[in-house]
Amino acid sequence: LKVAGVPRRTIWRTDDGAAVEIIDQTQLPHAFVTRRLESVADVATAIATMQVRGAPLIGATAAYGVCLQVSEDASDAAIAAACERLQATRPTAVNLGWALESMRSALQSQPLAEREAVAWQRAAAICDEDVATCRAIGKHGAELLIDAWERKRRAGPVEVLTHCNAGWLATVDWGTALAPIYDAAERGVSIHVWVSETRPRNQGAALTAWELANAGIPHTVIVDNVAGHLLQRGGVDLCLTGSDRTTASGDVCNKIGTYLKALAARENGVPFYVALPHSTIDWSLDDGVASIPIEERDGAEVRFVAGRSPSGVQTEVAILPDASAVANYAFDVTPAHLVTALVTERGICEASRAGLASLYPENA
Amino acid sequence: LKVAGVPRRTIWRTDDGAAVEIIDQTQLPHAFVTRRLESVADVATAIATMQVRGAPLIGATAAYGVCLQVSEDASDAAIAAACERLQATRPTAVNLGWALESMRSALQSQPLAEREAVAWQRAAAICDEDVATCRAIGKHGAELLIDAWERKRRAGPVEVLTHCNAGWLATVDWGTALAPIYDAAERGVSIHVWVSETRPRNQGAALTAWELANAGIPHTVIVDNVAGHLLQRGGVDLCLTGSDRTTASGDVCNKIGTYLKALAARENGVPFYVALPHSTIDWSLDDGVASIPIEERDGAEVRFVAGRSPSGVQTEVAILPDASAVANYAFDVTPAHLVTALVTERGICEASRAGLASLYPENA
Repeated sequence: LKVAGVPRRTIWRTDDGAAVEIIDQTQLPHAFVTRRLESVADVATAIATMQVRGAPLIGATAAYGVCLQVSEDASDAAIAAACERLQATRPTAVNLGWALESMRSALQSQPLAEREAVAWQRAAAICDEDVATCRAIGKHGAELLIDAWERKRRAGPVEVLTHCNAGWLATVDWGTALAPIYDAAERGVSIHVWVSETRPRNQGAALTAWELANAGIPHTVIVDNVAGHLLQRGGVDLCLTGSDRTTASGDVCNKIGTYLKALAARENGVPFYVALPHSTIDWSLDDGVASIPIEERDGAEVRFVAGRSPSGVQTEVAILPDASAVANYAFDVTPAHLVTALVTERGICEASRAGLASLYPENA
Repeated sequence: LKVAGVPRRTIWRTDDGAAVEIIDQTQLPHAFVTRRLESVADVATAIATMQVRGAPLIGATAAYGVCLQVSEDASDAAIAAACERLQATRPTAVNLGWALESMRSALQSQPLAEREAVAWQRAAAICDEDVATCRAIGKHGAELLIDAWERKRRAGPVEVLTHCNAGWLATVDWGTALAPIYDAAERGVSIHVWVSETRPRNQGAALTAWELANAGIPHTVIVDNVAGHLLQRGGVDLCLTGSDRTTASGDVCNKIGTYLKALAARENGVPFYVALPHSTIDWSLDDGVASIPIEERDGAEVRFVAGRSPSGVQTEVAILPDASAVANYAFDVTPAHLVTALVTERGICEASRAGLASLYPENA
């Protein structure tokens, strides 16, 4: 997508070839700041502090982390240590392990002298594949938006409810849940997006709203509590979110609060779609509620809210008594029976083992 | 309840008799500040800016607003104008109209010279009645907590999920949803409360957490998005919220987000109780979704988050792009079929016309 008219990805190798550069997403929406990452430590910090976030972008960034390691020390031991360190940054996103495994298997058969070049090639390929995947998700998902627009006889925009940020900023380009919106908008479909702010880190308010404003897509930010009311009153034509991990049976682990929206959508007869690349599918898991570990993050994310102060600087405010305890679960699991369909780079399928097997027979 | 060891109500007439004093709830949890209200204008501002909030306390404060008017000008026209002004401050809470009507009917038959004394007596009676009502709600609701504790054989605390603030601070004393918790805790029941922060104004994080900390009740603050996850994983024994308006058929209009919690409770087989005084029942309404007007408040509540800055002052931060639109619905409606039971000052009943009629035959 373009920022101030310039086409950009969310991660790129620097011209000197010695580092990668990212957009520091903790500074959005109020400042567009890029950061240079020169080592595995820089990459681990960027992922852990969520300067980069979103399952696909985490995977791409981790892949570049391996490149930075290999540029310094390409031994098996060094690669293994780097992978272990990067894997530990975020426990839920399955892309992280997928990207690291992809790097490891590309490198292990290579002689030491070849590894640096192979690593950078493989990481670039992971990024290019992600872009192609997101573009394909966008094309398939746009059909749902076009259908919804035609069903309402183009009387007003298609009202879409999304949660968190599964957009350009969560991937290398285009996004997953937002890719169909960008694609359909390019094809002339009128769309309005309800953006759920997505506490505790407000990725909806800070990132999705910024992306949509940047792309000129009409949108309205609401607090997370509003979703049920909107769905009950007929204000939403369809819900569309991303997924951090999807089980082989179609259960969706995504940003905390997704489950509540899916329940309200089902109750009110509104379709609930989930957009995801194959890299988020965990074929080893069946029952998401029973088997997906849910990351618990630092309680400071609940206790403090970050934003721009009246004097214009990025700061944070404490919103609860110092004496009170907090808990900070980062994801929840939406069982497959609440998901109308999955939108993947290979097409749209039922959220079930049979549905996923129809698109990915090689994994079924 | 006690604050720093001193028993306090949330509103009281000043010793000089010329004003009332309130706790400025916009300053909590970080500062305990009281404010003197000397006129109808002061009272209208205090209600509209939510220095006082909570349906029962809004009613009590409005009643004192009429007293301040009558102290200055006790004519029918002045009383009517004051009531009109106070009624316009908040459109949803039914107690506001109820308290104003109670004042008006007490005053209209009185000669001018008697009206000041009668007004202060009636307002004090409204407060005393509210305290008695909340105390009775607490006694009845405590039975539910005791039952839950016995059902789990006292193995760990009763895990209660609440939303917003329906506590001492929302009433004159004790609260509605929190009254059973205070009562059961006094009777030795072990309780842990999950406090949903309740965006956009964070009354859970700022007020309920402060109240519970002040009362020594163990509690954990979560973002609103977490409720579904907790209910799905068996972390909640029962839900308990207040109500801003209850229809004759048991539909509950309460703080935005209540509906999502009720859906998740039903999905996971967890009882969902609503505590309310009779003054929140609107006998004229049946279908809450179709007929309760939902207040839309200033978008600034979504755009900015208030709290304590790193330097210790109360301030607010902007959390979304200036270019993005916002919508701010303050309440939602939970249909009666999602409510396990209503807890009133007269006892516990089914959330239905028959249930309410069994407790309030004079209104049925």
